[in-house]
Amino acid sequence: MEIRPDELAERISALLEGDAADLLRELETVPAADVASAAKHLEDDQVVDLLKKLPEEISADVLVELGDEIREDVLERLTPREIADAVEEMDSDDAADVVSELDEEKAVEVVELLEEDDRREITQLLTYPEDCAGGIMQLEVVSVREDRTIQRAIEKIRLAWGDVREDFFYVFVVSSEGKLVGRLPVPRLILANPSDTVRSVMDEEILSVQAELDQEEVAQIFQKYDLPSLPVVDREGVLLGRITVDDIVDVIQDEAAEDYSRLAGTDEEEFREDSVWRKAAIRLPWLVTGLLGGVLSAVVLSRYEDDLAAVITLAFFVPVIMAMGGNVAIQSSAVMVRALATEEIRPRDAVRRLTREVGVSIITGLVCAALIFVAASFWWGDMRLGAVVGLAMLAVILISTSVGAFVPLAMDRVQIDPALATGPFVTTSNDILGILIYLSLATSILGR
Amino acid sequence: MEIRPDELAERISALLEGDAADLLRELETVPAADVASAAKHLEDDQVVDLLKKLPEEISADVLVELGDEIREDVLERLTPREIADAVEEMDSDDAADVVSELDEEKAVEVVELLEEDDRREITQLLTYPEDCAGGIMQLEVVSVREDRTIQRAIEKIRLAWGDVREDFFYVFVVSSEGKLVGRLPVPRLILANPSDTVRSVMDEEILSVQAELDQEEVAQIFQKYDLPSLPVVDREGVLLGRITVDDIVDVIQDEAAEDYSRLAGTDEEEFREDSVWRKAAIRLPWLVTGLLGGVLSAVVLSRYEDDLAAVITLAFFVPVIMAMGGNVAIQSSAVMVRALATEEIRPRDAVRRLTREVGVSIITGLVCAALIFVAASFWWGDMRLGAVVGLAMLAVILISTSVGAFVPLAMDRVQIDPALATGPFVTTSNDILGILIYLSLATSILGR
Repeated sequence: MEIRPDELAERISALLEGDAADLLRELETVPAADVASAAKHLEDDQVVDLLKKLPEEISADVLVELGDEIREDVLERLTPREIADAVEEMDSDDAADVVSELDEEKAVEVVELLEEDDRREITQLLTYPEDCAGGIMQLEVVSVREDRTIQRAIEKIRLAWGDVREDFFYVFVVSSEGKLVGRLPVPRLILANPSDTVRSVMDEEILSVQAELDQEEVAQIFQKYDLPSLPVVDREGVLLGRITVDDIVDVIQDEAAEDYSRLAGTDEEEFREDSVWRKAAIRLPWLVTGLLGGVLSAVVLSRYEDDLAAVITLAFFVPVIMAMGGNVAIQSSAVMVRALATEEIRPRDAVRRLTREVGVSIITGLVCAALIFVAASFWWGDMRLGAVVGLAMLAVILISTSVGAFVPLAMDRVQIDPALATGPFVTTSNDILGILIYLSLATSILGR
Repeated sequence: MEIRPDELAERISALLEGDAADLLRELETVPAADVASAAKHLEDDQVVDLLKKLPEEISADVLVELGDEIREDVLERLTPREIADAVEEMDSDDAADVVSELDEEKAVEVVELLEEDDRREITQLLTYPEDCAGGIMQLEVVSVREDRTIQRAIEKIRLAWGDVREDFFYVFVVSSEGKLVGRLPVPRLILANPSDTVRSVMDEEILSVQAELDQEEVAQIFQKYDLPSLPVVDREGVLLGRITVDDIVDVIQDEAAEDYSRLAGTDEEEFREDSVWRKAAIRLPWLVTGLLGGVLSAVVLSRYEDDLAAVITLAFFVPVIMAMGGNVAIQSSAVMVRALATEEIRPRDAVRRLTREVGVSIITGLVCAALIFVAASFWWGDMRLGAVVGLAMLAVILISTSVGAFVPLAMDRVQIDPALATGPFVTTSNDILGILIYLSLATSILGR
């Protein structure tokens, strides 16, 4: 069913040398997404050549589907006229995305070359910030006035043909002032009596979002109510456009990327960032936090200078205690952040989850303590050392697991993003905690 | 637009004391997802009471929307008869999900109480593993034979009414043997001539998946082709059911959760796991890996025992070198894993990205080296020590960032999940690397 991208690329590569008609015949039935996948195995010049040889509506589809990096390269090699021709074939949301990727000057040229209608639509869409409902909506919708008949709604679908793609699910119903008042699922149109009024058949009390709403909240509405599409309105309730669920999938991925990047000690912005300087600027705050923690660790160690000098073997186990404290804390904090992100946690569940983490830490703590006890006792031939390291390991795992699980819950309660409590922050604080526990245990057991 | 869950819970709580008719009137227009959100602010007994008082079709919807933990508690308090009544109102995929959550014995009882049709459907769905196309599909589809007319397709929609929810987008077209041969977008049905044959109007060459296909691959197809729904067939190509995009959203979240859990040193399974023993069993392999790394670190340190005993201050900076190596490696590996997961990376892009990481590491390395040089030189009053720690910091950041970025790329090239190269694996290997770099630099500069 699916075509291997590299094989398709080879065929395209050969066909580019030959007749344009052969190329078109071959690619006619291939989905644009497959052509776009093949493009990554072609030279940029070949991709540009391909886009020029294909009919405008097909090259527009391919351009929409291309990966960001390839598209950037390709757009640089196309003239404003060529880009404008492709943009006119696109859905308004994709068109606005492509234009927003161009540099300022070229974008202005492209927009000036567009037909009046398209220019107005794109200019309107570009006024919304990228990360709100207006920034991801498309303006192509089929709508009908509530006082018209079902027959009229069907005619509206006929009129919209070609402008709106076929996979739409609702005809939206508006008042005489253009305000959204309901929707008609397309299958219902088929079964309704053509002379019935739209008002008598439509769903009322439907969900919609204002154009200014943050895209994450839009995504939550889609997920909660399992919607295929959602109408977007302005502050007066006038229908502006619609968001479809395939655009929301990208938003959901971005949201997951945010938690992921926090855990790694960076920011989701970085994934879209090419400049080495800005990438470094995004990572440095996390690194400097870690650095400060490291200096604090050094201070703690220096306070035990005499003990360490007397029993230098003690220093050997600082890394393992540190590392394990960090590891268990990351595990428990990540599990908690994940739970908070995907479920609605009742206060009772929170207690249950904390108790569970303590249970887990007793098991993992006992296992790891036993292992390090054996390693330290036999390898370094000192049972007392083994006992100290093993006990410290148990204490560190118990405490770090619990702290790692508790902090995100507490932060969520006071409405701070719990994902901030993962990553370098957790490892750093547990590094210091671990060293303190270890050395205070060691000195009190081994004596001075 | 949206209702606050706690407010709705309060209203429900009050209404449960009164007349069932009032309750129904109040909740009639409230989406099931909102009632389910309110349920987390109610006692389990109240939720059970609510489900019993609502009409079966509404309580079935609410039961489907409840969070996993609450649903588990609620299902325990419902009789097999009550569960069976609700299950009969559900779409087949939701019904199978609910039944699979029951304990063995109760599941058998519930299935036996179902009507013949529902029993057969659920039994069929339960034969597929949870994580394949068959495990997430629903059996409710509207299909028509290719040799029939458009009029007949419209009648099939009418017949299916009530069984299939309204938001479907395609009528699937099958051959006389039931094999999938095409599809009809619903809007096209409206515009077509009723006496045309289905074959003359349908889309051919449509995408479908076999029931055995892994759900991640199904999700990739949805994302690549921006589909609202996808038909599922058996090995002979016979139409079995369909998957809708709202089910795919959950799969995509699970996939993101997998990368996230790798980074944290656990497994995505853990998020669904309640047993403390099994949770510990999932985390322990990662922890034992970390432990082994820690023991190796101890061995490395012990080889420098004399140097450390002579200049104990050297030991103070072991934690900061270790921590920073781990931090930068996690950042660069996470950025790379993320890029690999969401984009198609050309070999040329891979080189570009690696070069970029080296660039970032030069900047972050110089900044962190300068800071630790100042701290070590002035705090501990030893410029030579400061120089050693600073140089080691620079070297560790350069090397760890590059290794962190390179390993996932290499793993992806040989078809191993690059996410396995993040988390504890990266920090542990960089701990040891960092200590080695630091101490060999220190001894060669400071001499014995």
